Amino acid sequence: MTGNSFGTLFKITTWGESHGLAVGVVIDGCPPRIALSPEDIQSDLDRRRPGTGRASSPRQEKDKVEILSGIFEGKTTGTPISLLVRNEDVDSSPYEAWRDVFRPGQADFTYQKKYGIRDYRGGGRASARETVGRVAAGAVAKKILACEGVKVTNYTVELGGVRAQRLDGEEIEKNDFRCPDRDAAAAMVERVREVKDRGDSLGGVIEIRVQGCPAGLGEPVFDKLEADLAKGLMSIGAIRGVEIGAGFGVARMLGSECNDPMGPDGFKKNDAGGILGGISSGGDIILRVAVKPIPSIRLEQETVTTAFERVTLRMEGRHDVSAIPRINQVCEAMVAIVLADHLLRQRAFRDQRA
Amino acid sequence: MTGNSFGTLFKITTWGESHGLAVGVVIDGCPPRIALSPEDIQSDLDRRRPGTGRASSPRQEKDKVEILSGIFEGKTTGTPISLLVRNEDVDSSPYEAWRDVFRPGQADFTYQKKYGIRDYRGGGRASARETVGRVAAGAVAKKILACEGVKVTNYTVELGGVRAQRLDGEEIEKNDFRCPDRDAAAAMVERVREVKDRGDSLGGVIEIRVQGCPAGLGEPVFDKLEADLAKGLMSIGAIRGVEIGAGFGVARMLGSECNDPMGPDGFKKNDAGGILGGISSGGDIILRVAVKPIPSIRLEQETVTTAFERVTLRMEGRHDVSAIPRINQVCEAMVAIVLADHLLRQRAFRDQRA
Amino acid sequence: MTGNSFGTLFKITTWGESHGLAVGVVIDGCPPRIALSPEDIQSDLDRRRPGTGRASSPRQEKDKVEILSGIFEGKTTGTPISLLVRNEDVDSSPYEAWRDVFRPGQADFTYQKKYGIRDYRGGGRASARETVGRVAAGAVAKKILACEGVKVTNYTVELGGVRAQRLDGEEIEKNDFRCPDRDAAAAMVERVREVKDRGDSLGGVIEIRVQGCPAGLGEPVFDKLEADLAKGLMSIGAIRGVEIGAGFGVARMLGSECNDPMGPDGFKKNDAGGILGGISSGGDIILRVAVKPIPSIRLEQETVTTAFERVTLRMEGRHDVSAIPRINQVCEAMVAIVLADHLLRQRAFRDQRA
Amino acid sequence: MTGNSFGTLFKITTWGESHGLAVGVVIDGCPPRIALSPEDIQSDLDRRRPGTGRASSPRQEKDKVEILSGIFEGKTTGTPISLLVRNEDVDSSPYEAWRDVFRPGQADFTYQKKYGIRDYRGGGRASARETVGRVAAGAVAKKILACEGVKVTNYTVELGGVRAQRLDGEEIEKNDFRCPDRDAAAAMVERVREVKDRGDSLGGVIEIRVQGCPAGLGEPVFDKLEADLAKGLMSIGAIRGVEIGAGFGVARMLGSECNDPMGPDGFKKNDAGGILGGISSGGDIILRVAVKPIPSIRLEQETVTTAFERVTLRMEGRHDVSAIPRINQVCEAMVAIVLADHLLRQRAFRDQRA
Repeated sequence: MTGNSFGTLFKITTWGESHGLAVGVVIDGCPPRIALSPEDIQSDLDRRRPGTGRASSPRQEKDKVEILSGIFEGKTTGTPISLLVRNEDVDSSPYEAWRDVFRPGQADFTYQKKYGIRDYRGGGRASARETVGRVAAGAVAKKILACEGVKVTNYTVELGGVRAQRLDGEEIEKNDFRCPDRDAAAAMVERVREVKDRGDSLGGVIEIRVQGCPAGLGEPVFDKLEADLAKGLMSIGAIRGVEIGAGFGVARMLGSECNDPMGPDGFKKNDAGGILGGISSGGDIILRVAVKPIPSIRLEQETVTTAFERVTLRMEGRHDVSAIPRINQVCEAMVAIVLADHLLRQRAFRDQRA
Repeated sequence: MTGNSFGTLFKITTWGESHGLAVGVVIDGCPPRIALSPEDIQSDLDRRRPGTGRASSPRQEKDKVEILSGIFEGKTTGTPISLLVRNEDVDSSPYEAWRDVFRPGQADFTYQKKYGIRDYRGGGRASARETVGRVAAGAVAKKILACEGVKVTNYTVELGGVRAQRLDGEEIEKNDFRCPDRDAAAAMVERVREVKDRGDSLGGVIEIRVQGCPAGLGEPVFDKLEADLAKGLMSIGAIRGVEIGAGFGVARMLGSECNDPMGPDGFKKNDAGGILGGISSGGDIILRVAVKPIPSIRLEQETVTTAFERVTLRMEGRHDVSAIPRINQVCEAMVAIVLADHLLRQRAFRDQRA
Repeated sequence: MTGNSFGTLFKITTWGESHGLAVGVVIDGCPPRIALSPEDIQSDLDRRRPGTGRASSPRQEKDKVEILSGIFEGKTTGTPISLLVRNEDVDSSPYEAWRDVFRPGQADFTYQKKYGIRDYRGGGRASARETVGRVAAGAVAKKILACEGVKVTNYTVELGGVRAQRLDGEEIEKNDFRCPDRDAAAAMVERVREVKDRGDSLGGVIEIRVQGCPAGLGEPVFDKLEADLAKGLMSIGAIRGVEIGAGFGVARMLGSECNDPMGPDGFKKNDAGGILGGISSGGDIILRVAVKPIPSIRLEQETVTTAFERVTLRMEGRHDVSAIPRINQVCEAMVAIVLADHLLRQRAFRDQRA
Repeated sequence: MTGNSFGTLFKITTWGESHGLAVGVVIDGCPPRIALSPEDIQSDLDRRRPGTGRASSPRQEKDKVEILSGIFEGKTTGTPISLLVRNEDVDSSPYEAWRDVFRPGQADFTYQKKYGIRDYRGGGRASARETVGRVAAGAVAKKILACEGVKVTNYTVELGGVRAQRLDGEEIEKNDFRCPDRDAAAAMVERVREVKDRGDSLGGVIEIRVQGCPAGLGEPVFDKLEADLAKGLMSIGAIRGVEIGAGFGVARMLGSECNDPMGPDGFKKNDAGGILGGISSGGDIILRVAVKPIPSIRLEQETVTTAFERVTLRMEGRHDVSAIPRINQVCEAMVAIVLADHLLRQRAFRDQRA
C-alpha cells in the first residue's frame, strides 16, 4: 500500500484505472517560480500516445491534460500540481469475455490474489494507461532539469532482434521506433510488419542518456543514483532488466579494462555510465533497459479461468506489436523524475556554512 | 541525505566507515517474539568475511557482532535492534599515500565533489565494509522469512568469463565461489589464479532464487516487488545491472514465447521470474546481477590528484580478485530485506474485514 | 516540500487552491473490498460546508464530490482513490484589492517569503478550502474504522468564552455549534450574534472522543499515537493547541492523582486519555484543541503592503464569526485518518508467527 | 513499526532499552563540514542527566558518549553519525518484583498488549532513558542551527502549581528547575521538598523559545512547522499538551485581539508564536508543553498483575519528584531537531532558478 508515490523531495502520486473516469498525477515538491504551461505537458503526452506508428494500435486517445492546481499566472507556486486526463474513447465490452480469465503475461492472477477484487476492464490499474501520469509528471521534472541544463534523451537500440549499429541523434525523431540508426529502423519496420501479421509481439532494448548532469547527485548508501534510477525504471510494467554503463558487460571485463582512468580534463572513458559510488560524476549517465513483448497477442494461448479451469484464449482486435515507442517516453519521464528529485536533495546539502 | 535507510516497515539504517571505530545497523520494524541469537547473525557475517577463499584477500576481520538492543530473553521485542561490529585489524597507513589521489573506479572523486570532505582511509563510507550492516540485517530478515517458509539462495553463474553450465544446489557450499557447477568452479579457480598473478581483477554474474514466497507481495505501481529488489541490489557498490526472470533475454523473445501459460496446477514455465504486474505469483523469484571487477588492482593506472595533476597509481598489497564471494552474501541479505519488508506491508492489507 | 501528504500506510495527498479549478485528495493505502459510495463522502462534505449556521457565511458551495478512481462495482480495490470537488461560485474580484497587502493573521506574508510567489485569491493554498480534501479522506478512513467498531465523535466545549457544562451526546447534532449542552448552545448563539454585529470573530475549544479503539495502536517512540494525533490536528490552520486526557491540567496534579489505577475490569478512570506510552489502552481517546478566531474580520486593521508600506485594511463582506462548526468536521477527519493509519500499521505486527 | 525514526532530511533513529547494554542514536542527513566534537554532545547529555538537583534521583549515570562514525578530523562528513552511550550503574533486581505487574501511569499494560512481550527492567524501551539519544541528536542539530544564528532556549514556567511571574534569562541556569523567576524558583524548591517527603510527584509547564529563526521554514499543508513541532514534543513520554503563541488562550480572544498587526518594521506583537500558515515568520517561536507528574511514586497504588488480579503496589526507593529538569533538555533537543530538518528542507527550494 502507498506504493503509488515515488520520490523524496520531488514526489509524484499517480492514480487511475484504464477504464475508469480518468487518470492523473499529483506532483508535490516542484519548486516555485518555474514557467509551466499545459503545452509543456501536452507535447510529452502526445509523444507517448499510441499513434500512427506501425508498431501501435489505432485506438485514438486524445489525452488532453487539465492542470487543476499549483500554477498561478503561468508559474509554479510551490504547491501541489494536480494533473488530470479523462479516459475517452473507452469501450469495456471486449473485456467482459475475459472477466473470469487470467490472461497470460498479465497481472490478472496476482491482482486477484493480492486484493481479492480486480477491475478487469482494460487491465484496470495494471494497465499501461497508468503511465499517462508518469509522463505528465516527467514533463514537469524536465522543466526543473532544464533550469540546470540537464537533458534526457532516449532511443531504441534493439527491437525484435534488430540492433542499431550506430547512434545518430538526428535520426531518432525521424522514425516511429526512435531508432538512432536509419538502416536498423528500416529493418525494424520490416520485422514489426512480419510479426504483426502473425498476431505476435516483440521485445527490445531502450537506451537512456542524460547529458549535462552536474556531479554530486545521489545519496549513498541506499539511495545511490543508479539504485533510484533502477527502481524507477523497473517499476515500469514491461521492463525486465536495467543496466548502467558497461552493464552486464562488466562480468567479462578485467578491472584494468573496467576502471575509467582520469586525466586533468576528467574521465578518459565512461564505462561507469556517469556514476561512481552512487553519485553522479559529471559525465553522461547511460542506462539500458530490456522491454518484454506485449503480452496481449492474437495467437491462441492456454490459460485458466478464475476457477482454475482450463481455457483457450484468443484476444481478437488489433494489438500493439511492441510497447517500445511509448515506453521510450515513460523511461525518459522516470529518469527525469529521479534526477529532479536528487537535484533537490543535493541542494539541501550544497550551501551549508561551516 | 538520509540515503542510509532502506525499507518501509522493515527498515534498516546502516552507519560506519571502513577505518572508523565500528560499523553497524539499526533495524526498526522487526516483529516481536521471534527467537534471535547472536549466532544467527554471526554465521552470516562469517560467510561474508573475506576468508581463505582463493579470490579473497588475507585481511583478518573477526567481525564479532554485538546485539545492543531489541532482544529480551532470546526473543525480539518489536523495538529497534541495534547491531555493532568493531573495526579491528585496521591499518590506515597505506592510504596516506592516496590521500590526495582519486583512485580510478572508486568513489573518491564523487564523494569529494558531493561532500567537500572525505574520509580517505579504506574508502571511508564507500567501502564494501559498509555491507557488514546489510548482512547483519539480512540475517534478521531471514528469520522473519523463515517463519513463513520463504528461503533465499544465491550462487555464482559466471566469473571471469567462465559460466556455470548446470545448477547443482549441493555444489554451492562446496567451493569458494558458490558456483553450482563443479567443473565451472574448477575453471574459476584457474581463472582467478591467472588474473591474480597479473595483479588484475574479475567480474561475474550472481543469480538469486527465492523459494516459497507467497503470492501477493509487492505494491504497485512504484513499489513493485521487482522495483524494490532492483533498487536494493543496485545499491550494492559493485553491481552494474539487474534482471528478473528471462531478463535481457526478453528483448529477443516473441510474446508467444515470453508469456507463461497457466494450467489448473499453476504456471507452466517461469520466464516472468515469479512476479507479474509487480506482485509475487507464488513461483520462484529469479534474479541475476552483474558484478564489476574490483577496482583496486596492482597494475599501474593513470589518474589525477585532487588538484587534477596527472599521477600514476600503483596499489601494492594483496587485493581480492573478485568481490563475488562476499557479494553473494550481500545480495542474499538485500533480497531478504526487501521480501521481509513486503511481507509486513502485505499483512496490513490481508485481513481487512469488508 | 512534499508537505502535502499525511500518513504512513493510509496516506492522503491533498491538492488545490481556494480559487483554482478544483480541490481534491488522493488516498493511497485504503484496503480493498470495503463498500464505498459517493454518499459516504458527500454527507461529511455537507456537514463541513459553511451552511445556514449563524456562525457561518452565506457563500454557497455545493462541494459535489467526484470519485475518479479506486472503486469498482461499489467497493474499494486497494488502488488509489482520487476524489475531486470543483470550485464553483468563486468570485476572485474582492481579492484584487488585497493583492499587494499582507492581511493580518493570514499566511500572506509567510507564503510570499517562502515561495516568492503567491496565489492571493481567497488565500490560495492556505485557504480553509483545502480541508475539503481532508474531510473527504476522513470519510474513507471512517469506513475502515467502522469495520473494527471504532467511532469518532466531536463537539464544541467552548466558544467565545461560553463553556459547555455537560456532555449530552444527543444535543450535539441539534445545534449549529455541535455544542453538547443545550443551554451553552443558546448562549453561544447570543455571543456569536453580538460579535457578528461588531464585525469581529471568536475562538473556542473542540473536544474529540474516540470510542471502541482497540488497544495496541501507536508506534513508539516517535510515532506515538498522541504524537501523530497532535501533528494531524496542529496541521489544521486555525488550531493553536492540542491536549490529551487531563491535558494542561496535569501541570497542577500530583502523581497520585494523575495515574489511572487499574482493577480486574480495567482502568478505574481515564486521565491518560486512552493512551499510555504512546499506545492505545482500549479506553476512550480524548483530545481537545484550541481554535483561534477567524482572522478575516470587518474591523479596521493596521498592516503593510508587500512593499512594507503602512496601510489600513477593511475587509468588507460577510465573514464567518467562527471556524468552529466546520473545524469540528476537519478534526474528526484528521483523527479518523490517524487512527486508520495506525490500525493498518498495527496489523503488520499482529499476526507474526514465532 | 519504524516509529523509531524522526525527521525527513535531518533524520534521527534512536534505539536502546533502559537496562540493556546501551542506548544510542543514528543521525542521517547532517550536512558535511560542520565542526563537531564529543564535548559538543557531552555537555548536553550532562545537562540532561539526573543530577544533584533537588527534584532528581541520585542514580549516577555517567552517560559518556562515543562517536562511532560520521566525523573525520573533527568535522562531519555528511555520512551517518552513530552515537552510543553504555548503560552503566544498572541494577535490574528491584524490577523483578514488578515483572508481572502493570504499574499505573506506565506503558507496561499497553506494551504487553501491543507486542505480547516486554522488557520489564526499568521500563525497557518506554523508559525516559531513551531520551539520551534525542538529546545527543539535539546537540548535533543545534550545531546546524548555530551556523544560521538560530538559538533554542527553554525554561520552566510552572511546577507543582508554582508559576514564574517573570522571564529573567540570566536566572534560568542558576537554579535546578530552569525557572526564569528567582522567587518562583525558591517556591518550587519548597514545593518539591514537601511532595518528596510524601512520596508523591509533580507536574509542570515548560516554555521553549526559538530566536533568530529565518522566515520561510515549514511545509504546508501537513508538515506545517507547528505540526512537526507538536509531534516532536508530544512524542516525549511525559508531555500531555502542546500550544503555540497564545495557545489555548485564543479560545477566549476576539479576532481583533488575536491577529498580530504589521508595520513597516514587522509584526507589532507575537500572539501567533512566530508561525503563520505553518511557516515561520521570522519572529520568536514560542511553545509551551504540559508535563505530567512522574508516575513512579512511593505512595501505595492499586493495580493488577498481568493475570488481571488485584494487587497493591508500593515502589520503594528514591524517585524523582518531577521530570521537569531533564525534560527541559529533551524539549530543547526535539525543537532543535525539527528546526534543523526544516532548515534543510527549505534549502531545496531556496535557490531555484526560474
